[in-house]
Amino acid sequence: MLTSVLDRIDATRDAARARLFEFLAIPSVSAQPDHAADCAAAAEWAAAHLRGSGFMARLCPTPGHPVVLAHHPGTGGAGAPHLLFYGHYDVQPAEPLELWHSPPFAPVVVEGRHGPRVVARGAVDDKGQVSMWLEAFRAWHEIAGGPPCRITVAIEGEEETGSRNLAGFLEAERAALAADVAVISDTNMWSIDQPAITTRLRGMVYAQVTLRAASRDLHSGLYGGAALNPINALTQLLGSLHGADGRVQIPGFYDAVAPLPPRLAEQWARLGFDESAFLGEVGLTQPAGEAGFSALERLWARPTADINGIWGGYQGAGPKTVIAAEAGAKVSFRLVPGQDPARIAADFRRFLEARAPAGADLSVDIFSAEPAIEVPEASPFVAHAAAALRAEYGRDPVLIGGGGSIPVVASLKHRLGLETVLMGFGLDDDQIHSPNEKFELRCLDHGTRAHARFLAELAV
Amino acid sequence: MLTSVLDRIDATRDAARARLFEFLAIPSVSAQPDHAADCAAAAEWAAAHLRGSGFMARLCPTPGHPVVLAHHPGTGGAGAPHLLFYGHYDVQPAEPLELWHSPPFAPVVVEGRHGPRVVARGAVDDKGQVSMWLEAFRAWHEIAGGPPCRITVAIEGEEETGSRNLAGFLEAERAALAADVAVISDTNMWSIDQPAITTRLRGMVYAQVTLRAASRDLHSGLYGGAALNPINALTQLLGSLHGADGRVQIPGFYDAVAPLPPRLAEQWARLGFDESAFLGEVGLTQPAGEAGFSALERLWARPTADINGIWGGYQGAGPKTVIAAEAGAKVSFRLVPGQDPARIAADFRRFLEARAPAGADLSVDIFSAEPAIEVPEASPFVAHAAAALRAEYGRDPVLIGGGGSIPVVASLKHRLGLETVLMGFGLDDDQIHSPNEKFELRCLDHGTRAHARFLAELAV
Repeated sequence: MLTSVLDRIDATRDAARARLFEFLAIPSVSAQPDHAADCAAAAEWAAAHLRGSGFMARLCPTPGHPVVLAHHPGTGGAGAPHLLFYGHYDVQPAEPLELWHSPPFAPVVVEGRHGPRVVARGAVDDKGQVSMWLEAFRAWHEIAGGPPCRITVAIEGEEETGSRNLAGFLEAERAALAADVAVISDTNMWSIDQPAITTRLRGMVYAQVTLRAASRDLHSGLYGGAALNPINALTQLLGSLHGADGRVQIPGFYDAVAPLPPRLAEQWARLGFDESAFLGEVGLTQPAGEAGFSALERLWARPTADINGIWGGYQGAGPKTVIAAEAGAKVSFRLVPGQDPARIAADFRRFLEARAPAGADLSVDIFSAEPAIEVPEASPFVAHAAAALRAEYGRDPVLIGGGGSIPVVASLKHRLGLETVLMGFGLDDDQIHSPNEKFELRCLDHGTRAHARFLAELAV
Repeated sequence: MLTSVLDRIDATRDAARARLFEFLAIPSVSAQPDHAADCAAAAEWAAAHLRGSGFMARLCPTPGHPVVLAHHPGTGGAGAPHLLFYGHYDVQPAEPLELWHSPPFAPVVVEGRHGPRVVARGAVDDKGQVSMWLEAFRAWHEIAGGPPCRITVAIEGEEETGSRNLAGFLEAERAALAADVAVISDTNMWSIDQPAITTRLRGMVYAQVTLRAASRDLHSGLYGGAALNPINALTQLLGSLHGADGRVQIPGFYDAVAPLPPRLAEQWARLGFDESAFLGEVGLTQPAGEAGFSALERLWARPTADINGIWGGYQGAGPKTVIAAEAGAKVSFRLVPGQDPARIAADFRRFLEARAPAGADLSVDIFSAEPAIEVPEASPFVAHAAAALRAEYGRDPVLIGGGGSIPVVASLKHRLGLETVLMGFGLDDDQIHSPNEKFELRCLDHGTRAHARFLAELAV
């Protein structure tokens, strides 16, 4: 049966690709209010795809963008496991648009060093990865009348903006979401030929900081020397976030960081990560960050503070002698196991309040606060995923960490008691969140087949 | 004769106002390349106005915007003095547009606490102030066939972007610009009823700083902890510009600052400046700046560093988990007598270079570097201006400093050997360089009459 399913996937590649292109053409940017209708359209698109594979699907409204919720009873016996597939149909903003080589929502296939790749916003994060399991379901449906195990699907539309309505959805649909394990494809392979399962992800606190001073912009000649300059003050505040050793200066920031298990550190060391190549690929000549740790440890096991955006005053051409009325920044912290995101958010606020100059109006908005997660490596579902990857690639997958955050993994664990298998097919150079985001078709095709194999592995 | 000229000014106010509105309606923003044609139109407008008052006028091209150059031989004897009136027809960018109560280039008269005022970009800086002497020339022309002394006029179009082509113009037209003294109206009164002559102005160095790191924007989860973040680095660099005492930390920054003459310090102290009211009017509750100096000293006699703009990464709504490829800022220094702008610019560059992180690509562009200036208070032309103001207002003018820069004053002195009389009619709350810039009609009318009187004072 699996052979027929895999053959079907191979034989219908063009149709699957056309479906993915439809999905990618919908500019479902969750952060930008004027794309709300596009988000709804992307949700409808995914629901229709699932219905075409025999699923019962509906859109669950939230205060933000809807969640696609779908079920298939499967063709397996009563003892077959029940999987919850989670993905997201929303994408990052495409800006800066002028750096794209083709329009971000007009997907194209171009040749790269690994062969053809699809280029579009969302190509890999997460529409392309979601489409792998959507197409695996489609093939099982067409060959066998459905997947060999019971499946629930939840595809949300606010992952890129902090999943702020996901908790409410999980609580409201708790009964409909009952499953044995969650499966997510939103992570990377170790390399194009080396499959990987991610067992460790950093958490995140994301904040927006605004400093206001005068009631209007001021002339820097007439007021300079007597008037509080909020940009001066903001650079002082944020410039003091790191010490000379790259460590975050918020008091107690590292207190709860759990030490990396030596076994995991050893395995990571064996991966032979080439930091110079990793950085050189994006034009960096020097490592940065916290002193005293290996590159993989800094990426997978150490917390960070990064200013993701800053603004204030005049940004146009030429000079303008102005003292701005306000300045702002977006600041995020990547967290590791042990760190409490609520405490980090509160400590950051306190750090800023203690240093803000008198007369400045400081506001700190916390967009999201999610803990880091660890997946038990001994899980039988991890073993099934590893077997599927081994069969597809002819080699064992490696267990890796990830520097990014997938907050839903923590929510699934804490709210529904579910562990998550993270089997992803992205590559480090996929430029997610950047212009010219891409997904290798080789990864897409293997990923679709690996998901079909994974379902077969779980059949009773 | 003067009485007839003043009567003529009073009788033709409406026509003069209509002319000023025409001038203000031209969006001659010198910093924005798409307004180049508007700058040329404003220059043509001013030349036509002068021709209508019997001047010979032409536009002198520069690599940037043209300079209006005009002459009138005057009706006085050979011994009458020769004045060089300088002004500028360019204006600051009007952004942020959403904060204007009426369109910036659609001048309107609205009622304020001092009676009617004209609101528009350039209302006072410098189109409104230029129009005072243009209208004084017009009245003298209509009553007496011309002004009682010889007059040269130079109106440039790049004052708001650092006058970068003015030096070349002054050298090229050196012969045509020969005069006994320069006269500029681009400064403020002490208050609506207290005329003032400015004898001290700060200089300025204006720089743009850019830090580049990776060749593209990066995902802060995948790269955070290993990749140089140029916004983090820029806030550290610029956040170290000031010490806790508000002093600029560039080594040697204060070394050459000339001490304030005690006589001037005493006179300023007698002005009874109300710092709380000055700051409170713009919504500030606390003084900022360098410790150990009075407010007027900090505004008029102490150097500053202000970040006038900053940018980098994501500035839109919501979160975006990006590490930007580059970040930048505009930074200006107000300088006082004794400080060498070239040395300050070089020291700032060295300060940044010494602190920029390894692997960052730092660039520093200097837009302008002009020294502070002092006008000799004993000049007979200052005495004539004081007499004109005394006659118009019925009280002695005060001698004040100014926090802003009028770089041309230093250029006129160093290149043409001319001192400058700074007789201005703006008020501190005119919101120059800000939304809703205004000029009190009371100031405009007195200023026009005072200029007509000043010319009569100089008649032989």
